Amino acid sequence: MNAPLTIALDAMGGDFGPSVVVPAALDFLSKRRDVALILVGNEEAIREQLKDAQHDERVTIRHASQAVAMDELPSKALRNKKDSSMRVAIDLVKEGVAQACVSAGNTGALMATARFVLKTLPGVDRPAIITAVPSQHGSTHLLDLGANVDCSAIHLFQFAVMGSELITAVEGLAAPKVGLLNIGEEEIKGNEQVKQAHELLSTCDLNYVGYVEGDDIYLGDVDVVVMDGFVGNVALKTSEGVAKLLGRFLSRSFKQSWLTRISGLAALPILNRFRRTFDPRRYNGASLLGLRGIVIKSHGGADRIAFENAIRIAEKEIHCNVPERIAQQVAIHLDDGRKRAAG
Amino acid sequence: MNAPLTIALDAMGGDFGPSVVVPAALDFLSKRRDVALILVGNEEAIREQLKDAQHDERVTIRHASQAVAMDELPSKALRNKKDSSMRVAIDLVKEGVAQACVSAGNTGALMATARFVLKTLPGVDRPAIITAVPSQHGSTHLLDLGANVDCSAIHLFQFAVMGSELITAVEGLAAPKVGLLNIGEEEIKGNEQVKQAHELLSTCDLNYVGYVEGDDIYLGDVDVVVMDGFVGNVALKTSEGVAKLLGRFLSRSFKQSWLTRISGLAALPILNRFRRTFDPRRYNGASLLGLRGIVIKSHGGADRIAFENAIRIAEKEIHCNVPERIAQQVAIHLDDGRKRAAG
Repeated sequence: MNAPLTIALDAMGGDFGPSVVVPAALDFLSKRRDVALILVGNEEAIREQLKDAQHDERVTIRHASQAVAMDELPSKALRNKKDSSMRVAIDLVKEGVAQACVSAGNTGALMATARFVLKTLPGVDRPAIITAVPSQHGSTHLLDLGANVDCSAIHLFQFAVMGSELITAVEGLAAPKVGLLNIGEEEIKGNEQVKQAHELLSTCDLNYVGYVEGDDIYLGDVDVVVMDGFVGNVALKTSEGVAKLLGRFLSRSFKQSWLTRISGLAALPILNRFRRTFDPRRYNGASLLGLRGIVIKSHGGADRIAFENAIRIAEKEIHCNVPERIAQQVAIHLDDGRKRAAG
Repeated sequence: MNAPLTIALDAMGGDFGPSVVVPAALDFLSKRRDVALILVGNEEAIREQLKDAQHDERVTIRHASQAVAMDELPSKALRNKKDSSMRVAIDLVKEGVAQACVSAGNTGALMATARFVLKTLPGVDRPAIITAVPSQHGSTHLLDLGANVDCSAIHLFQFAVMGSELITAVEGLAAPKVGLLNIGEEEIKGNEQVKQAHELLSTCDLNYVGYVEGDDIYLGDVDVVVMDGFVGNVALKTSEGVAKLLGRFLSRSFKQSWLTRISGLAALPILNRFRRTFDPRRYNGASLLGLRGIVIKSHGGADRIAFENAIRIAEKEIHCNVPERIAQQVAIHLDDGRKRAAG
């Protein structure tokens, strides 16, 4: 095996474990030449999934004797599960055997373990979770999505620096537009942390466009929207809820009678395009930013298509040297901040 | 004029002022016998709107020399606009001339003025804003939606009591299901305020169902979802953003070619039902709960159909004695809390 690029997959994570992770891994490899994957977890369970499938030496298994439960306390997982598939996958990144890892496991445990094993980049107080959502003009990235429930202004500022650099690195945008989520476009609204973060962002050299509101996320006029983890998680879940409600209403409506079934047939190409465009699987894969290594969180309920997408994001972040680039930007902004503070 | 029920309308509020408020008022009256409306604002501008329209003595005008701007600081509006249409409409409720008022004006100013003029009910620390959103099984009520950006556990608890009683009063549900918005169903997640509010709610006699997440709002399994104002405002605006994104995608898709136009025609009844069901105008009208009087906030961009809906909500809350009923419930829960605290 001499692949220049290796990704470790937590094969036991998520609602479906190896039955999703292994097929997704093989799908991914069938489209790539220069990537190797390490399947981390219960060897027997992984072999069972591999046995009837075509695969080559780019797939290897790394046995791990434990698995982290989806509802396990992060602190307990960290203390008691030193040979979990999640932990070993992250260890492989730490050791340089893999350049990234992907897990559909317990978000809290993944963040705690990644932070403990890999450590944060210099100047980053807290790692954040970022993902893309569809918008009118493509997609918008949101962070933080749940790693940090109480954030100070400086945390929000760091999220902005990291999110902006991720977009620059991965999408090649020179100056991504960064917005700060607030509850009014007027400067009079919002809580203290948000107002202070606004001050910090207004005087830095990011392409900061100011406050944005919840509905602006989906207009696509900004590339990155910054918020604390509680708010971000609510925004993301609420969006999923609305999309599901509307989608179900439509499909139920078209199935109501033979007349609506016929009109549904006529509208099928459009409804299918609708489903494809807003398919959450296309957006599966959130990055844990601010760590000394690449860690991608897949949705726990991801299927093989969705999980494959998360592997693709890991690959892209390796190619784009995301952690190194973020480290540089954080250093520049810290330096700039120090100079400005010194007058 | 001897109508048993009078509602004061801030005719100058919102993006369109009298050109929306006056027609909405007349539409509303054409369907009612026992309600009178007072149009508060610039007399000339209101007369201009009334002049070609049919109306009877149930419409009266109350001149007010000022108007509150949509971006005016609430504290300034309160200090400098003592003869604004908004202030006078609220004064009419205070004086008992009207039993409720409706305004599409600046939310912050409306809340500040209403709180100053009407005062909060005994035992209520902070009034909250509540509205309904569509869900799988009808609708779900959310509060707070922006009045309170930083909330303690006791504030969230009071919101739950008020929201629950509103549903009981207005929708006749004996024990509405109350959920507390959090970012994980497991008890390990969430911020301190939310965890403490969960403790308070778990031991009170509301029909508290526990934590819910953003996507649960639209499932309709709970009747009331409680959250702080920052989170609530983001949840609401984000939902609007997603609904607009999906709606625009659909209508644009159906207009793409003559083929899609034909399939759009076939699907028209369903698309129209979709639009009707999720028409935000049907949900226009948020209540300011916890005050000694009924104040309804209409969306600033409301058209006549939407504004009429807000008047209808005001009428319903008068019929149901909402403030009195909330006062009673708050008293019971305070008493119960005191007893429990005393062991």
